[in-house]
Amino acid sequence: MAAKIKVAILGATGIVGQRFVQLLQDHPWFEISALAASERSVGRPYAEAVRWKLDTPLPPSVRDLPVLEPKPDLEAHIAFSSLDASVAGPIEEHFAQAGYAVISNSKNHRMDEDVPLLVPEINSEHLALIERQQARRGYRKGFIVTNPNCSATTLSLALAPLERAFGIASVVVTTLQAVSGAGYPGVPSLDILGNVIPYISEEEEKIERETRKIFGRLRDHTIEFHPMSVSATATRIPVLDGHTESVSVQLRTPATLEEITDALRSYRSLPQQLRLPSAPEHPIVLVEEQDRPQPRLDVYREKGMATIVGRVRPCSALGWKFVILGHNTLRGAAGAAILNAELLKAQGFLRCLE
Amino acid sequence: MAAKIKVAILGATGIVGQRFVQLLQDHPWFEISALAASERSVGRPYAEAVRWKLDTPLPPSVRDLPVLEPKPDLEAHIAFSSLDASVAGPIEEHFAQAGYAVISNSKNHRMDEDVPLLVPEINSEHLALIERQQARRGYRKGFIVTNPNCSATTLSLALAPLERAFGIASVVVTTLQAVSGAGYPGVPSLDILGNVIPYISEEEEKIERETRKIFGRLRDHTIEFHPMSVSATATRIPVLDGHTESVSVQLRTPATLEEITDALRSYRSLPQQLRLPSAPEHPIVLVEEQDRPQPRLDVYREKGMATIVGRVRPCSALGWKFVILGHNTLRGAAGAAILNAELLKAQGFLRCLE
Amino acid sequence: MAAKIKVAILGATGIVGQRFVQLLQDHPWFEISALAASERSVGRPYAEAVRWKLDTPLPPSVRDLPVLEPKPDLEAHIAFSSLDASVAGPIEEHFAQAGYAVISNSKNHRMDEDVPLLVPEINSEHLALIERQQARRGYRKGFIVTNPNCSATTLSLALAPLERAFGIASVVVTTLQAVSGAGYPGVPSLDILGNVIPYISEEEEKIERETRKIFGRLRDHTIEFHPMSVSATATRIPVLDGHTESVSVQLRTPATLEEITDALRSYRSLPQQLRLPSAPEHPIVLVEEQDRPQPRLDVYREKGMATIVGRVRPCSALGWKFVILGHNTLRGAAGAAILNAELLKAQGFLRCLE
Amino acid sequence: MAAKIKVAILGATGIVGQRFVQLLQDHPWFEISALAASERSVGRPYAEAVRWKLDTPLPPSVRDLPVLEPKPDLEAHIAFSSLDASVAGPIEEHFAQAGYAVISNSKNHRMDEDVPLLVPEINSEHLALIERQQARRGYRKGFIVTNPNCSATTLSLALAPLERAFGIASVVVTTLQAVSGAGYPGVPSLDILGNVIPYISEEEEKIERETRKIFGRLRDHTIEFHPMSVSATATRIPVLDGHTESVSVQLRTPATLEEITDALRSYRSLPQQLRLPSAPEHPIVLVEEQDRPQPRLDVYREKGMATIVGRVRPCSALGWKFVILGHNTLRGAAGAAILNAELLKAQGFLRCLE
Repeated sequence: MAAKIKVAILGATGIVGQRFVQLLQDHPWFEISALAASERSVGRPYAEAVRWKLDTPLPPSVRDLPVLEPKPDLEAHIAFSSLDASVAGPIEEHFAQAGYAVISNSKNHRMDEDVPLLVPEINSEHLALIERQQARRGYRKGFIVTNPNCSATTLSLALAPLERAFGIASVVVTTLQAVSGAGYPGVPSLDILGNVIPYISEEEEKIERETRKIFGRLRDHTIEFHPMSVSATATRIPVLDGHTESVSVQLRTPATLEEITDALRSYRSLPQQLRLPSAPEHPIVLVEEQDRPQPRLDVYREKGMATIVGRVRPCSALGWKFVILGHNTLRGAAGAAILNAELLKAQGFLRCLE
Repeated sequence: MAAKIKVAILGATGIVGQRFVQLLQDHPWFEISALAASERSVGRPYAEAVRWKLDTPLPPSVRDLPVLEPKPDLEAHIAFSSLDASVAGPIEEHFAQAGYAVISNSKNHRMDEDVPLLVPEINSEHLALIERQQARRGYRKGFIVTNPNCSATTLSLALAPLERAFGIASVVVTTLQAVSGAGYPGVPSLDILGNVIPYISEEEEKIERETRKIFGRLRDHTIEFHPMSVSATATRIPVLDGHTESVSVQLRTPATLEEITDALRSYRSLPQQLRLPSAPEHPIVLVEEQDRPQPRLDVYREKGMATIVGRVRPCSALGWKFVILGHNTLRGAAGAAILNAELLKAQGFLRCLE
Repeated sequence: MAAKIKVAILGATGIVGQRFVQLLQDHPWFEISALAASERSVGRPYAEAVRWKLDTPLPPSVRDLPVLEPKPDLEAHIAFSSLDASVAGPIEEHFAQAGYAVISNSKNHRMDEDVPLLVPEINSEHLALIERQQARRGYRKGFIVTNPNCSATTLSLALAPLERAFGIASVVVTTLQAVSGAGYPGVPSLDILGNVIPYISEEEEKIERETRKIFGRLRDHTIEFHPMSVSATATRIPVLDGHTESVSVQLRTPATLEEITDALRSYRSLPQQLRLPSAPEHPIVLVEEQDRPQPRLDVYREKGMATIVGRVRPCSALGWKFVILGHNTLRGAAGAAILNAELLKAQGFLRCLE
Repeated sequence: MAAKIKVAILGATGIVGQRFVQLLQDHPWFEISALAASERSVGRPYAEAVRWKLDTPLPPSVRDLPVLEPKPDLEAHIAFSSLDASVAGPIEEHFAQAGYAVISNSKNHRMDEDVPLLVPEINSEHLALIERQQARRGYRKGFIVTNPNCSATTLSLALAPLERAFGIASVVVTTLQAVSGAGYPGVPSLDILGNVIPYISEEEEKIERETRKIFGRLRDHTIEFHPMSVSATATRIPVLDGHTESVSVQLRTPATLEEITDALRSYRSLPQQLRLPSAPEHPIVLVEEQDRPQPRLDVYREKGMATIVGRVRPCSALGWKFVILGHNTLRGAAGAAILNAELLKAQGFLRCLE
């Protein structure tokens, strides 16, 4: 068995950082070699620095790892980043400059025109941007690849089969988002117990913008955004994990209910063909019961790496509508980044290993 | 001071029935003279028969009222009905036949073509149907008037100023509904704690259908449904009281943001002009903060009788979008029925009093 | 009508500060003349500085009041303090030194031996400490009076009738506390949604210590702590307002169930005799239903100023047990302080007015 | 590999029945051969009859099993019962009479003097009652063994090391119980969202009585109840799974904190020695962090089969106190019954197999 690839986690103490730790503890290809976080935690053993909020125990193998500064002298080839947006931008650049493959969940570089906003099931061809990125920025082996916002990822996976089969003209989406999406301490309980907060800072813009980049066409080493219109309303509700989204969609070509559900159910893509370790067997899970998907019952299907789709039915305004669900810190964050790294490895992009 | 009008409550022990009791205990025009409910409760004092779930105490004046059968021999002129849909239909007809003004919150007769689906701020002219109803059904003095489903009421109030000023072509709405809307025992806690149920039986059809009747045009003693398309997705969330709705709307004529907010803010109608006791001073309350309206903070504005509107902004798919909130058992149920009764009295429709 | 007494609120933007503002907006004796808070808020209008979290609107009369520094140059005679414990100590002393009657909800001076820990229904004679306090500290007209921790107040009110009638030897109490007790932002939703946190910093010590001071005997100008043992376990649960407490108590003299419920039900004390504006008519409300008290249904009884007691029954270990409920930010905080101020005024302690 | 033992589940569609199905799907010794439930479900495939509420999928192997009547003609040797108490009594007797080993989670026979109330870590010697039971009732090979109420099980496991090492004189316990303990539909959301219900029917009596039987001494073929006094207050809170309990305990002999934590930490018993498949490696898990155990973070430790103990500290009234947590439908119900069955098999009590 080949030695595992050493990976560092930047922002390792946050909620997404904890998911990275959880998902990477037994990964077949990667092993955690360094944990970095903000100044407050530096120098302390991880078990002391983190306020572990997951319901599986803190993996013993990382308990005593010292939390390091997020400086590009970590012993690793890949740097998974869930750094806070207030600092992620330049730190990620420093790591890329220094030769690391930076696989980021942070928003800072998502809209950079030479940075792929990667969803392996949808736009693996966008990885061609890496070459341009390295040329332009003078990175030798390193690069930055990002995954989308949690709500945009969940939505895009559900749209992918429809775009492939019928084309998408317009989308109206309302999200009902879990509190874990806001990190820790995140949403105060006084604000959300028995309540709805019908606003999440910047979230709607991210959903609207990122979705169009994800489905963009690579042309002349740049991404032409998809012309679909996307209109989002983002709300926060008292749910722990799992973003639910109510979606109406206008297709470019007519489709029957059966054609749509067939397209959703049968969708497979590169990660499935490559059998990437974190790839869901079914990137879209279609549920039949009329009162599903539900976060509590469905969010861990396909290990939290799929978009669950239910209630596909006609929409008198736009054509079709349905309800979708995705796990915001798994497929919506840490899991997405890890799947991205797996694709990069499988496709030979990890020149940093050479 | 004129004697108060005696009113009976049919279905007095349910959640909406309790709201009737609460709202009518000090009403300036009406007084509770009889409480009726299902067989299980009949014969017991109200205080024993009811499982009181409101956070104001059970009014002493009704504690000892015996719960009666819902038969049209109650000493009252008006019968407020929140009977279960499984029995409401014929019982309400018997009461109307017997001369009672039946003001119903139940769904059974809402779509009858000779029954007004009344929102006093919107379609008071629909009361002209009563004459036809009485002629057709052979009711002498009695009649049936209904109020819409809670989600449809909240939505219609927000749409009314837009319809009046600009015309409405199409609406896409996703609701986030409170558990009190399902009555008692209603939604099991195992289903809803930390969860979303993306389905409420018949709710979407009610919203889509009732909204178009509410805005329908009275022509030749019948209601021509409004041609707008309405597409609804209804979800249940762990909130006690207050339905939140995410709304996108396509107007018939162009409007600026300022014109829209002006229309919403300045909307007044008949109940305000008549100063009906339960009429909100502002049927629409426009909130400016970007993270509002919120059920916990806003649902009791205007005593729960208004629709709270916030986050008015462009929608790339349909034109405009916003978030609204209404109290599902006040303006959405018992309060709506009482306001209907007030309008009927003020407009001289209570011939049952003669 | 006499002019109202001007009062300042120190710590006006916090959750308890908001309750002060809410309760004082129409107070018959007091009027808000100044609002003070921490540096971050100073200079801004109150409506901008505060994140208003109550479900009644921000009173218009204070919207534009500028937030001032908590320095003893405020135009007021009484200073209600809900300052953060990290700063309350010296600030309150400065105000007392400068002649203000400081009525504090903060913990800092509660255990000072010359500061009354006042519950007007229980230990008004402790106000005799003021004279000693002023002498010792060189305060001329000013002084500091404190109210107990929310859980201790709720518990003490329930114990008072039992102490008066039978004497108390020992108490075991487990609290189920609401999140509003932790202020804002307070408890992260990720920690408490669908969860219990079986620990609240310092809370158990406060309950155990303060209860014994409240029931202490004034002797030679000092308080001899009551010899009862009090053992507390404090937990946080996902409830917004209202602390529930499960209490077992060992009495000094035997009592029957009837004697105990009579003692609870009939308890009246000085605030009731003086008809203080904020005094509950019944400081203890005894509920008969076996599944009560419940925060959602009972916490606003007596305007949140009473302890609600239910389920009085034998305890095989200690003798008797029951369940109690109190509103943590009303009788447990702001309301308690205001009642204290009313007692001080009624008893002629406000020499600061001279 | 020996053939697996065929087991039937009586009451298979309820919440505990679902846990039986979940836990038994890959059991090394047992295999589900029959599912029985109430009349409403009989004849339908299990997948249709059940409203599956667990967050792992319904096992494919039972989807199509027809739901049968709970009559003793099922093809099985063991009958796990989670029948509703309204019917469990005689049905379980019929099964025992017919030769089945009835392993029941229902309350009906728990207090029968010839029926073991078994906690394998505590009172395996009580199985000697089976012989007397068979003799008295004329059962040939069958018998009834019960497991305690969920709260009593969690409590007893925590008390066991203390009883063994120091003896227990008295216990005061307040429970904070999850809604899954009430089955489905169980607790209405209107009752429990943001609320506490300080009463659970019969729960306190069960805790008080069953704990004393569990620790009872087998003497002359009967169980002498343990003389400890147990005083319980049971509350329901908005938590899905996991009962938290605040416990004060009076020991018979003095103990230091270290002796107590050592006793808790080192406790092992027969199921651990026999390495029963469902036995937790540590029947008691001692957590050090002062804000633990918490249901959301700790309830699945040891696969939900242990009692988690934290916050061990002195109690001024009784001596010692601590907070415990147990999974109410795993160790508190289905898991307990399966562990009982494993012990019975390992100890040779399954004569029904002969």
